[in-house]
Amino acid sequence: MTGKMIGVGLGPGDPELLTLKSARLIAAAQVIAYPALPGTESFARQIAAMHITETTHEIVIEIPMSTARGPAQAAYDLGAERIAEALDLGQDVVVLCEGDPFFYGSFMYLHARLVGHYEVEVVPGVTSVSAGAARAGRALTARNDTLVTIPAPLDDESIRSRMDGADSFAILKLGRHLGRIRALLGALGLAENAVYVERATLAEEVILPLAEAPDPAPYFSIILVTKGADPWLNPPS
Amino acid sequence: MTGKMIGVGLGPGDPELLTLKSARLIAAAQVIAYPALPGTESFARQIAAMHITETTHEIVIEIPMSTARGPAQAAYDLGAERIAEALDLGQDVVVLCEGDPFFYGSFMYLHARLVGHYEVEVVPGVTSVSAGAARAGRALTARNDTLVTIPAPLDDESIRSRMDGADSFAILKLGRHLGRIRALLGALGLAENAVYVERATLAEEVILPLAEAPDPAPYFSIILVTKGADPWLNPPS
Repeated sequence: MTGKMIGVGLGPGDPELLTLKSARLIAAAQVIAYPALPGTESFARQIAAMHITETTHEIVIEIPMSTARGPAQAAYDLGAERIAEALDLGQDVVVLCEGDPFFYGSFMYLHARLVGHYEVEVVPGVTSVSAGAARAGRALTARNDTLVTIPAPLDDESIRSRMDGADSFAILKLGRHLGRIRALLGALGLAENAVYVERATLAEEVILPLAEAPDPAPYFSIILVTKGADPWLNPPS
Repeated sequence: MTGKMIGVGLGPGDPELLTLKSARLIAAAQVIAYPALPGTESFARQIAAMHITETTHEIVIEIPMSTARGPAQAAYDLGAERIAEALDLGQDVVVLCEGDPFFYGSFMYLHARLVGHYEVEVVPGVTSVSAGAARAGRALTARNDTLVTIPAPLDDESIRSRMDGADSFAILKLGRHLGRIRALLGALGLAENAVYVERATLAEEVILPLAEAPDPAPYFSIILVTKGADPWLNPPS
């Protein structure tokens, strides 16, 4: 009998935003696996720390700091191999995933390598978008409105066209793109409706009007925009 | 001292997909409030049931079965009044919200009535979209792709234009619209990439290729579509 890989969502950062199921699976795990940047403590492991027991075997997947795809993909190759070794021994492996495993998560790179070869289960988690909205006190979307998630590294024209069809949107992966996104929202007359949320639900959380957001922004920050059609749901403050 | 209204996300249906924080707040609540359709057990209350104590006071907000806005809005007026009465007595009120409170949630109608007058906190939850993807074993979105949520009651032209700019999308609130949506996806050549998920994470869960989905579908069902650009993330099955 080979083991099962279980990708568990950890939510946005507050350890209390784990689901009961994720907490139970982590506490019961023989083997856990998680990504870490070289020389730093894994953010995923930090969120889950209180549920990890002393006897749990830990597979650390070191993801090199690089925008090139090659080195990161090689790291996922190696991580998938080490997970497969444990699965072949009949051990279940719980993979710790920041946020939700299938929403801009690196778990997908492991999933794509192992699905079809091993049994896989995925436990969903709270996304940074839901967390940002909750902390900012802003409704995301209602009734027959559409919500669009837009990664900031896209070019201006792509971003503009994606905003066109949306009633509200969340812009992710801001980093060095914040200034460009702010200018774009200003040109479209949407800057007034935008709120900036950094590290939602963590002690270091920052929530600001877009005009006051830092540039560059950290990677774990988002901008939430409602096109202002429904002041009834998000009353002007 | 007036009390605080706390909207807590309950996740998609499996009681184990509550967050630790939601479970703690419900268990500690003096007063809870939740919506219910007339003559039925509240779905929200069912999800949270194991955490509700015998001494908790319960405010049931009966939402009439009607597509007209008037009767429902009157019900939220009354619900907000009853919550406000408890808040005025200095009691905190925990509002039970299916999924995530700010993602197509009825909590927003209470929030809009009471925010600014009382202290409000929102605890995010796992959405039905994350849950459906997890249960179907399908990545939602990755890298610089965009994800769009599209309510099925929109007209064909609106839906088509929203699909245009998306790399992947989730269609919600299917109900009697399923046949129309299926035809639309077929005409766009996207039916092959679509999966139908009904009541994700509940015992009654159903996952089917779109071609086999029931018409009409229940309200708590979604269709997930990836435009097929990335078979590497969602390998063909």
